[in-house]
Amino acid sequence: MTKELQTNITSHFWQRYRNLMANNSIPFQWDMINDNNKVEITNDAFAAGGSADKSHAIANLKIVAGQEKGHFFGMDFQDTDVYKWLESAAYVLKYAPSEKLHKEADSVVDLIAEAQEDGGYLSTMFQIEMPERKFKRLQQSHELYSMGHYIEAGVAYYEVTGNQKALMIAEKMAKCIGNHFGLEEGKVKGIPGHPEIELALARLYEATKNKKYLALAKYFITQRGKDTEFFDRQNEADGKDRNFFPGMDKFGNRYYFADKPVTEQQDVHGHAVRVLYFCTGLAHVARLTGDQELMKTAHRLWNDTVKKQMYITGNVGQTTTGEAFTYDYDLPNDSNYGETCASVAMVFFGKQMLASDLNGQYGDVIEKELFNGALSGIALDGMHYFYVNPLEADPKASKGNPGKNHINTQRSSWFACACCPSNITRLLSSVDKYLYQVKDNTILADQFIANETSFDDGIKIKLASDYPWDGKLTFTIENPQEKYFNFAVRIPSWSLKNYQVSFNGREIDPILEKQLVTFPITGSETQIIVNLDMRVHLMRANNYVKDDMGKVAIQRGPVIYCAEEEDNQVPLWCYRLRNKLTFTANYDNNLLDGVVTLDTNDVERANQNSEQLYYEDDSFEWTQAHLRLIPYYAWANRSNGQMQVWFNKA
Amino acid sequence: MTKELQTNITSHFWQRYRNLMANNSIPFQWDMINDNNKVEITNDAFAAGGSADKSHAIANLKIVAGQEKGHFFGMDFQDTDVYKWLESAAYVLKYAPSEKLHKEADSVVDLIAEAQEDGGYLSTMFQIEMPERKFKRLQQSHELYSMGHYIEAGVAYYEVTGNQKALMIAEKMAKCIGNHFGLEEGKVKGIPGHPEIELALARLYEATKNKKYLALAKYFITQRGKDTEFFDRQNEADGKDRNFFPGMDKFGNRYYFADKPVTEQQDVHGHAVRVLYFCTGLAHVARLTGDQELMKTAHRLWNDTVKKQMYITGNVGQTTTGEAFTYDYDLPNDSNYGETCASVAMVFFGKQMLASDLNGQYGDVIEKELFNGALSGIALDGMHYFYVNPLEADPKASKGNPGKNHINTQRSSWFACACCPSNITRLLSSVDKYLYQVKDNTILADQFIANETSFDDGIKIKLASDYPWDGKLTFTIENPQEKYFNFAVRIPSWSLKNYQVSFNGREIDPILEKQLVTFPITGSETQIIVNLDMRVHLMRANNYVKDDMGKVAIQRGPVIYCAEEEDNQVPLWCYRLRNKLTFTANYDNNLLDGVVTLDTNDVERANQNSEQLYYEDDSFEWTQAHLRLIPYYAWANRSNGQMQVWFNKA
Ligand SMILES: [Zn+2]
Ligand SMILES: [Zn+2]
Repeated sequence: MTKELQTNITSHFWQRYRNLMANNSIPFQWDMINDNNKVEITNDAFAAGGSADKSHAIANLKIVAGQEKGHFFGMDFQDTDVYKWLESAAYVLKYAPSEKLHKEADSVVDLIAEAQEDGGYLSTMFQIEMPERKFKRLQQSHELYSMGHYIEAGVAYYEVTGNQKALMIAEKMAKCIGNHFGLEEGKVKGIPGHPEIELALARLYEATKNKKYLALAKYFITQRGKDTEFFDRQNEADGKDRNFFPGMDKFGNRYYFADKPVTEQQDVHGHAVRVLYFCTGLAHVARLTGDQELMKTAHRLWNDTVKKQMYITGNVGQTTTGEAFTYDYDLPNDSNYGETCASVAMVFFGKQMLASDLNGQYGDVIEKELFNGALSGIALDGMHYFYVNPLEADPKASKGNPGKNHINTQRSSWFACACCPSNITRLLSSVDKYLYQVKDNTILADQFIANETSFDDGIKIKLASDYPWDGKLTFTIENPQEKYFNFAVRIPSWSLKNYQVSFNGREIDPILEKQLVTFPITGSETQIIVNLDMRVHLMRANNYVKDDMGKVAIQRGPVIYCAEEEDNQVPLWCYRLRNKLTFTANYDNNLLDGVVTLDTNDVERANQNSEQLYYEDDSFEWTQAHLRLIPYYAWANRSNGQMQVWFNKA
Repeated sequence: MTKELQTNITSHFWQRYRNLMANNSIPFQWDMINDNNKVEITNDAFAAGGSADKSHAIANLKIVAGQEKGHFFGMDFQDTDVYKWLESAAYVLKYAPSEKLHKEADSVVDLIAEAQEDGGYLSTMFQIEMPERKFKRLQQSHELYSMGHYIEAGVAYYEVTGNQKALMIAEKMAKCIGNHFGLEEGKVKGIPGHPEIELALARLYEATKNKKYLALAKYFITQRGKDTEFFDRQNEADGKDRNFFPGMDKFGNRYYFADKPVTEQQDVHGHAVRVLYFCTGLAHVARLTGDQELMKTAHRLWNDTVKKQMYITGNVGQTTTGEAFTYDYDLPNDSNYGETCASVAMVFFGKQMLASDLNGQYGDVIEKELFNGALSGIALDGMHYFYVNPLEADPKASKGNPGKNHINTQRSSWFACACCPSNITRLLSSVDKYLYQVKDNTILADQFIANETSFDDGIKIKLASDYPWDGKLTFTIENPQEKYFNFAVRIPSWSLKNYQVSFNGREIDPILEKQLVTFPITGSETQIIVNLDMRVHLMRANNYVKDDMGKVAIQRGPVIYCAEEEDNQVPLWCYRLRNKLTFTANYDNNLLDGVVTLDTNDVERANQNSEQLYYEDDSFEWTQAHLRLIPYYAWANRSNGQMQVWFNKA
């Protein structure tokens, strides 16, 4: 039935971000990948992502296209910085038409077409420096990862602009990959070290309906972990000491999520972004093929990630060693990784899970990322980025303790491994994808970003709201043809204990199923108002989480709060919340581009009663204090100082 | 005046350890270094120190001595495992004469003499594998470190047994080093990457009174940090890719405590054992030479270590990265290093500081190590050892989080880098060194290990006590010649608020100076009883210590306590001490070879009220529970489980 046709986002909060993408992030990243030298690159040599003084990503393509001379520079996946820029540009062009951007993007498509080989292959490092090693060291080569990113970009750009060449490049790549890989006689039964191609091929299938792409996607999903000697054999043949990343041949199949067939995997482990991209493809392919065993696996992996290995901010990946997951309930706040890309991947994974099962739990996670874990990855200026997102930071610790060197306390303008900037950009420029989920005869309002959206059959839905600062959601549904369909609204987990619903002006008490309230719609004009619980919630972590024991995190609506040195006394860890406490919530339009702050006097500070390193408890005391909290996503936009999400509680 | 002549330790607690050294540790380590294959080596590949399946330390010497054929095996300082065994054997022979051990030790001296070059040089790796590289890569070669350890051993063995050859080898080494290094024309103005030679030469000077050795020690102290390009120049000349330890040429002078002249150093940093061995030599040489600037520096570095970078257990070295110090007040409990050797080094450093300044603060630290940080390094069986000593451990974390892989939750029988086992052994077999400090006309009773000690002039001091379990110290002083001298007793910092002193049966209220009470002794028989405060103390850490905020550690007498999984519910972090609490102290002779346990019902546990990863605070609750604590040094002697020193407090 109903298909989403057009969306206009009216949310004040998100309009700001969409303008930021169009006016700051996209032009800034264009200058970066073109090495325009307009920008002063700031970054931290010790921090994750590494320091960069140039990109060279467009230059690499130009060298392959014969437009420039020189050597390849960068990571073996440097091309993806261009592709993800193109994908973001597509989304921006959808809501902010710009001739200049359109021309730039078209020129990128032309350049990529020039660089692509006739057979469809494209990976500039191999074309420039080592053509004989194409597809020969998949564990580390990122060729399928890079082409997967192009396929995503090509599909997006085609869908927005109708550029056929963009789609053609993607299809040529898919053909190249299909010719090379598969179970058929004469093909290589290989898999990539870094998943991405699976979700890209599923997306290409949806755009083209060419079933070969879906079959190829499924091949990469199901082949993973079946031949546990594949990487070793390839590495051996390619030459032992020819790693693209030092030591990466020794990480073991478990790190690559390739230690056993996917349907036998019980939990997420290894490199966080890899496994989450894989899970996104897995859920997507499971839905498109109706494969129940794959779907069960996707559910199992989703549950492990979300219920046992996710920070309250939505960040995932607990260790810098290999940018990886560790184990269930291990959630250290001051040494975690929480790569921005991993949060972006959680949104993709959640969206695919939601598409096959209308259930509020998926939107809860998507929302968590949109307002916290992923959003923290970008500065309010749109031009500085976090690679790592800690829940507790101290510039002294980042500098002085090697176990925390990876934690940047100020956002960088670029990285040697520049995956995160363009990833957060493509997410934020496409939030319109997450408003509604249409399935069978139901339209689910999943994300509460104020909007006006038209569907087919003349149906229009308008959501008025000042979310996330206010919890009143006013849905106005126009249905001129008086068609029958179901309209569902997600009730966020944080509001389950307290929400009110009115249907055409009358308070009702609807049944909640799978965290959704559902209304049959038949009238031509319907108004549904949902009031969500905007009281401040103190959140505890499960007892198994060592690092949060005795502590609470503060949440209001979907927004997780933190304290910053800028507003409070340091050390921040000296604060303790009183047993009973209230916060005052105030919207301040002039602070951090408009945020609700939370203030409380129901807090005490440890007195500095001793100069001793250790002293007797009887001379220790707490004294009354004041604490101000700001949204977590907005930290590190004013000064370089301490930040903290979890607070001791009396 | 008075000189200590003979000591007999009567302490029940320490007699057990002295027997353990004689009967278990020394024979076990003899079998290890001889590769007698009698022992089943248990260790953990991930843990610090590395896994070993053999030692080969004696074999290396035999190859050089021409008694065996083969290649060198082990670390470039493998020889030191033999030297530290010899030093320990010397101390054991002093209190537990054994013909067998005496013969074994003599044979080792003979072997070392055979292996030593005529010029005095001895370092088996270089002699066997790369004679052309002797003294050519001092940053990593450990040659001066190794010879320093022999010098310590040779002096000790000579002093106990009168073996002249043992001393001669040491003097030949010193001569070799003196011929090679120094400011004089034609000598190399070099320093070692790993200090040790400084303290060894000072010790050799004290044994021989040969001032050349003291001058050479002072040279190594004062030259350090003066030529910051020395290591780089040597590495360059020796060949860039010829590191003995991968990457160690890139650690920078600061890591080697060689970034500036020692008198300009403000804090301890870099590799913990290196800097603490250096400081020991520094304090020793400063005292012997009367150099006030060096002494001021020793004070400054002592204060930084003890007042800003030491765990409450006495452990030092906060990070596994380079086995190093981090920065002031950074004291994470579950990722620290706390190498056993570093705690042993603190005892040496403290002893040297005390020798020049009778002050209770030094004995406090020595005591902390003897009953906690250092003692934790050895199992109750004397044959298993910790390299790393955490204050909070969880086998799951050690296995699952790479940032905690270095933390072993069960002691190993040996390590690839086997520095710790023989270091704790040489300390525990020589605790008699720490009972008294004689200076000018004062005898200070510094460590309260029950003993009978005779001094010259017929003076005898007897200390009767069941320390550390009981705080009553009964000193009986025989002074038949009625000589006048001062007798001082350290009042430990934990007892300063509450202690009683009686002098010949009368309660007195003596003046406390530098944490010492001092009595002029003139009579022929004097009895002094000091009652120390054996109540349980709850200790807070300074506010600047993030990881201990809101927590207390539990101390009784000099002993720091911990909870173990064996006695309590897990996770241990779910316990919280009530605001007011009392502990019941019980001595249990059958537990852990006799310990005082602490039990309390004034504790609560977080209820597992939710299966959710995050849930609202209003359904969180504490419930009354029971907690049992055991001495920290005795953990990991029963089962492989969680351990915790710091506890949340309401
Ligand atoms: Zn990234
Ligand atoms: Zn050691």
